[in-house]
Amino acid sequence: MELLQKARKLESQGRDIVHMEIGEPDFATPDPVIRASVEILQQGQIKYTPAAGMPELREKIAQYYQRQYAVDVDPQRIFITPGASGAFLLTLGVSLNPGDEVLMTDPCYPCNSNFISFFDAVTRMIPVDAGTDFQLNAQLLEQHWGKRTRGVLITSPANPTGSVIAAKDLQQCVELVNGREGCLYSDEIYHGLVHGSAAASALQFSDRVFVINSFSKYFAMTGWRIGWLIVPEAYCDAVQRLAQNIFISTPSLSQHAALAAFSEENLEELENRAAEFARRGEFLYQELRRLGFAIASRPEGAFYIYADCSKFTADSYQFALDLLQQEGGAVTPGKDFGSNAPHRHIRFAYTTAMHRLEEGIRRLERFVGA
Amino acid sequence: MELLQKARKLESQGRDIVHMEIGEPDFATPDPVIRASVEILQQGQIKYTPAAGMPELREKIAQYYQRQYAVDVDPQRIFITPGASGAFLLTLGVSLNPGDEVLMTDPCYPCNSNFISFFDAVTRMIPVDAGTDFQLNAQLLEQHWGKRTRGVLITSPANPTGSVIAAKDLQQCVELVNGREGCLYSDEIYHGLVHGSAAASALQFSDRVFVINSFSKYFAMTGWRIGWLIVPEAYCDAVQRLAQNIFISTPSLSQHAALAAFSEENLEELENRAAEFARRGEFLYQELRRLGFAIASRPEGAFYIYADCSKFTADSYQFALDLLQQEGGAVTPGKDFGSNAPHRHIRFAYTTAMHRLEEGIRRLERFVGA
Repeated sequence: MELLQKARKLESQGRDIVHMEIGEPDFATPDPVIRASVEILQQGQIKYTPAAGMPELREKIAQYYQRQYAVDVDPQRIFITPGASGAFLLTLGVSLNPGDEVLMTDPCYPCNSNFISFFDAVTRMIPVDAGTDFQLNAQLLEQHWGKRTRGVLITSPANPTGSVIAAKDLQQCVELVNGREGCLYSDEIYHGLVHGSAAASALQFSDRVFVINSFSKYFAMTGWRIGWLIVPEAYCDAVQRLAQNIFISTPSLSQHAALAAFSEENLEELENRAAEFARRGEFLYQELRRLGFAIASRPEGAFYIYADCSKFTADSYQFALDLLQQEGGAVTPGKDFGSNAPHRHIRFAYTTAMHRLEEGIRRLERFVGA
Repeated sequence: MELLQKARKLESQGRDIVHMEIGEPDFATPDPVIRASVEILQQGQIKYTPAAGMPELREKIAQYYQRQYAVDVDPQRIFITPGASGAFLLTLGVSLNPGDEVLMTDPCYPCNSNFISFFDAVTRMIPVDAGTDFQLNAQLLEQHWGKRTRGVLITSPANPTGSVIAAKDLQQCVELVNGREGCLYSDEIYHGLVHGSAAASALQFSDRVFVINSFSKYFAMTGWRIGWLIVPEAYCDAVQRLAQNIFISTPSLSQHAALAAFSEENLEELENRAAEFARRGEFLYQELRRLGFAIASRPEGAFYIYADCSKFTADSYQFALDLLQQEGGAVTPGKDFGSNAPHRHIRFAYTTAMHRLEEGIRRLERFVGA
C-alpha cells in the first residue's frame, strides 16, 4: 500500500511509472456487460434485491459450477455478496467465535488475517515455501492444528505467490478439516486465471466447505464490488440472517451486470484475456529468472510472481523503494505478505500491458546491473 | 419481514396487495442520476476507488453540510460506505469492544441491535413513548447509563415512529455523551424527509460524534448501496484501515451516481418528492385518526406512522395477518421493532402512491368496521 501511494505520488508529479504492484486487472469491464447494464439502468428501477441475491444470478452460478467443475450446487447455498470481502465477512461472521484460531499460509494476502482479527479470532500463520508450492497440505495442517483451531484458509491460485494447490492436496485438506469438524474456507477468487489445467474447487470434494469467489479478477469487474459465497447447508439460515442485517443486499445493478457476464460472448472475451495474462506471466517468469531472481516453484495462476531477490539485496523493501525512485518501476516488497522471509521476496504483478512489462524489465535490468 | 414475504406470496398468486409495509421509497432513481451513470458506464472503467471514497464525492458532501446545516466538515472525516449498513459496520467496528453497551430506543429498527450483537456488544433498549416524542433525551440517558455503557444511538427521523428529536434535546444528548467520553452515533438516514422544519444534525453541536447517512431514502437510491459516515478526527485512521480491509471500496458507479445526485436539477426533483411524502403522511395521519387509531405524538419525518391499534385489537400481529388475508392490506406489526408494547402498535409506511394509500384506507376501514 505504501509503495502504491508513493508510486501514485511520483506519477502525479509527472514521472512515468511502470506499475507491477497493482492487484487489479488492467482490463476494463467487457462490452457485453456494459451494454446489458446500460439497458437495466435506463429502466431506472435500481431497488433492493433479496439479501441472498437475485434468484436468476444464484441459479446461473450453480450452472457455472456444473459446467466448470461438474459439481451440483443447490442455488439456495449460493449467496451473492458485496465482493469477496463481503463473502469473507459472512463466512467468518457465522463460523468464528472470539479466540478461535484459523490456519493460513505465510506469505498470504494481508487482509485475510485482518478479517480474522476483526472477529477477535486469531490467525496462526504456517510458513510455506517452494517445497510445498507455497501451499498447505494435510501434513502441515496436522502438524499445526491446535486446541483452538477452528478453521483453515486455502487460497488457490494464491496471492502473492501465484501457486495452485494440487487437487489431491486440496482433497486431503478438506477431508482432514471435515474429520476434525473444522471449517474449510476455500478462497477461489483467482479461479479462471491459470496457465495450465484448471484449479480444483473444494466443492469437488465436499459440500461441507465454504467457497469464496468474486467477479473482480477473472471477470474483471473490480469496481462493481460483487462476489459470491457457497456455504454448507447447515449455515444457510445464519448466513441469510447476517446478510440481511449487515448488507441488506448487494448492489442491484452489479447483480444484473454479473448475470450478463455469463453470456457466451463475454466468456469468450474472458478466455482471451486469461490467455493474455498467461502470456504475460510466462514472459515475466522467463525474464526474472534471466536477470537472476530465484523462482523455485513455477507460478501457475493469478497474476503474480513472488520472486526471491536475495542475489541483489538482503532488504527487499529498500530494493523496492530504490527501484521506484531510480527507475520508476513499482513492485511490492515481501513485508506486505507476512513474516516468512519477506526481506528476500518481491511480488511482481502482471496487471499491465505486455509492452509496459517489457519496459519494466528493461528498467529492472538497468537497476540490478547498476 | 415475515409479513412482507406473505404479502409477496399472495401477490404472486394474483392477489392485489396494498403495500404499507415497505421501508423503501417507491420512486425510481431520478433521471439526472441515471443519465450521468450511463455516461460513466460507457467509458467502461469501473475500477476500485480509494477505500474512503472518491475525493470529489467526499468534497461534495462536505459542501452539502455547509449548505444544509451551515457546518464545516473536513472532507477527510467523511467516508463513503456501502450503504448505511457499511457505515454502521465501520462505526461500531472501530468504537466497540465485546461486552460494551449501547443505549437506544425501544421501539427501534431491528437491524441496529443485531449490528451491536455482531460485535459481541450489548444493546440496552430504553422504552420510549409519546411523552418524549419516542426519542431519547439527556434525562433518559442519565437514568440508563451504566458501567459498561459505551455508546448511544439516536435515530431522527426515526423508524418506525417517524419522530424527530428536538434540536435542544439532541444537543443535550451530545453534550452528556461527550462529557462521559462515550460515543454518540447519530443515524440521520431519513434527513431531508421531514414535514416541518429540517431535522438537526448532531454535527451542529460537536465534531466528536459519528454521523451515519445514506443515499437510500431522500435520494431514492436504495439498490445502489451507498451511504456515508462522518467520524471524529481521532477515529479517521482506524476507519480508513477497517474500510480498506473489509470493503476495499464502495461500488464505483454508485459513487459517480451519488456525485450526480447533488446537481441542482436533481435536488429540485428530490424536494418535489419530499413534498409528496409529506402530503401522503398528512393524509395517512388524518385518516388513521379518523378510523380510531391513536397517534399521540404527530410523526414529523421519514415515511412511517406508528399507530396504536388497541381500540381494535390486543394483538397487532394477528391484526396485521388478518388485514393481509382478508383485505390484502400489508402493514408491519410492532413486534418487529422491540418489546415496548409491540402488541398495541402497527407501523404504516407511506411508500406507495396516494391513490393506493386511499385504497389502503378503504380496505382498513372495511376491516375495522367489519
